[in-house]
Amino acid sequence: MAEHPFLLACRRQSVPYVPVWYMRQAGRYQPEYRQLRERYSLLDICRIPELCMEVTRLPVTQLGVDAAILFSDIMVPLGPMGIDFDIVEHVGPVTRNPVQSASDVARLRVYDPAAELPYVAESVRLICDNVDVPLIGFAGAPFTLASYIVEGRPSRDYLKTKRLMWSEPAVWQSLMDKLADVVIRYLRMQIEAGAAAVQVFDSWVGSLAPEDFQAHVLPAMRRIFAAIADTGVPAIYFGVGTGELLPMFAEAGANVVGIDWRVSIREARRRTGGGVAIQGNLDPALLLAPWSEIERRARSVIDQGLEADGFIFNLGHGVVFHQPPVAVDTLRRLTEFVHEYSALRIGAGRNDA
Amino acid sequence: MAEHPFLLACRRQSVPYVPVWYMRQAGRYQPEYRQLRERYSLLDICRIPELCMEVTRLPVTQLGVDAAILFSDIMVPLGPMGIDFDIVEHVGPVTRNPVQSASDVARLRVYDPAAELPYVAESVRLICDNVDVPLIGFAGAPFTLASYIVEGRPSRDYLKTKRLMWSEPAVWQSLMDKLADVVIRYLRMQIEAGAAAVQVFDSWVGSLAPEDFQAHVLPAMRRIFAAIADTGVPAIYFGVGTGELLPMFAEAGANVVGIDWRVSIREARRRTGGGVAIQGNLDPALLLAPWSEIERRARSVIDQGLEADGFIFNLGHGVVFHQPPVAVDTLRRLTEFVHEYSALRIGAGRNDA
Repeated sequence: MAEHPFLLACRRQSVPYVPVWYMRQAGRYQPEYRQLRERYSLLDICRIPELCMEVTRLPVTQLGVDAAILFSDIMVPLGPMGIDFDIVEHVGPVTRNPVQSASDVARLRVYDPAAELPYVAESVRLICDNVDVPLIGFAGAPFTLASYIVEGRPSRDYLKTKRLMWSEPAVWQSLMDKLADVVIRYLRMQIEAGAAAVQVFDSWVGSLAPEDFQAHVLPAMRRIFAAIADTGVPAIYFGVGTGELLPMFAEAGANVVGIDWRVSIREARRRTGGGVAIQGNLDPALLLAPWSEIERRARSVIDQGLEADGFIFNLGHGVVFHQPPVAVDTLRRLTEFVHEYSALRIGAGRNDA
Repeated sequence: MAEHPFLLACRRQSVPYVPVWYMRQAGRYQPEYRQLRERYSLLDICRIPELCMEVTRLPVTQLGVDAAILFSDIMVPLGPMGIDFDIVEHVGPVTRNPVQSASDVARLRVYDPAAELPYVAESVRLICDNVDVPLIGFAGAPFTLASYIVEGRPSRDYLKTKRLMWSEPAVWQSLMDKLADVVIRYLRMQIEAGAAAVQVFDSWVGSLAPEDFQAHVLPAMRRIFAAIADTGVPAIYFGVGTGELLPMFAEAGANVVGIDWRVSIREARRRTGGGVAIQGNLDPALLLAPWSEIERRARSVIDQGLEADGFIFNLGHGVVFHQPPVAVDTLRRLTEFVHEYSALRIGAGRNDA
């Protein structure tokens, strides 16, 4: 498994073809998933290892991707901290007891995930036994988790979150510290159970000015990546709209930086200094475009990706939900195209040399 | 008026102090505005010149800013094109007949704004007669306008808009062309009525990959700025999250590029090549922070702004709506700080020389 192209690419070693997986590769675009969701809630699927394994495995079988990612919700590790939340259809995570004061933060528990979330480790083990590609463990990053529990629901401006950060920096730091502690324990549990890599989702951190990221978020991120470095498992740090933050994303200590479509692979390599692998970055809206346009844009992404070792093909954010849904066949065809086109180009390069 | 610091800065001439205005400086954070809105809708205020003048003038009087901006809604020029919309409280512009096909685009009318929107020119004249700072005319840019009328409402992903752009490029181009034609006529009318500058709001164009902006949006923007260049009135081109688009924003032909807080003034100057003035870029969420933090961050923005001629202080997006609201006094104090601190620094520079 250590020689799997996905893991080689994470470590910036040479690969026979560009590995590919998709954020939210298990989800509502799949007819099988929609059918399952008629009987089970999203959180049910997270909590029942057999269901979690099936849902995690399905896109690997259907699409031929090079990695599975633990099916879960970003909010799962927040429950045992004392956050009372629900996932509301067409809205997202809604928190009944938002965190907005020093005493709210003081009440948050840092807990032992093996005791409180045993089903997560069990799911990871079950997936590793039943899926023949590397499994990526999953956690939200402290800023993005904080944005949900401070706002109480998905937000566009993150006004309450930023206000807390600036008005009560000590409370904010304590919140970041507790969230980082939980994320570290949660990721280590997944790694111990068999995850071959982990991705930390900081989807909304691109809403911050670089100065704010540096002062109020980067320290927690450094601590997270330092605390799992001894496992030897590659860590991916992903966010949306992070163009100006990329030098600091590289400093944070991850092995791979995930980017969205707003910044090119080439520019991301330049800004991260070449010391990390890059993952991305097709606009997920392109999955609704004609195939000719998808192929043209994927080719451009792959061409830039192949300019150096250390590239993983992905979307710039999760597979979108749309009516009519993205076709499973589109993603299968894209996966094949990435494999075949990149293998040809890599082979041609070897013949040239 | 041509010697007003705001206009000097637009033209990258030297100024005695850094001029400042705020996007959405007239709005719900003002008690007087909230009171007026109990009796009049947003569109009423846009349509009644006396009300429009009062609302446009109020922040100039209250805050001491260096420019007024025509109070209006981005949707106003779309009505006579045949768009049936309403501004829904806490939602935004909702279109009852979204534009999603070739025949929808074919039906859109390019009209004479002097005949269809006479109250806009009348408002501009009334404001110019009653406000003693330059008036900035106002229009949305084709992409952002299209995003509202294609999606039918505010969106996070712009899936329908992007799908139209990629799936039916000829229809998309026709839509951009018609919107650009209307924007050009609408801006020229405002300039003829007395607007001393214009700002084109492309708030959501930062959702595009650079390649898409270049292929599907930039041509319309070039055409707009070229078509008003003969008026000699400075044009500002503004968008959110446009860090990677800035070289093309500069190419589009505007005199001033407005940026958000995600990218620094210094970096924006570098990417635009120095041939345009820069406007921005304090995170509007900072208006909810303690004054010490606002001042520290404003100082940093001004320091970078003063590294070259051609800088206008603004927020990175509109004044936010929040409960409790941003205090009018915070914005007044910020305006004073920008004026005093920048005048001191400019004066010190002169003494050094």
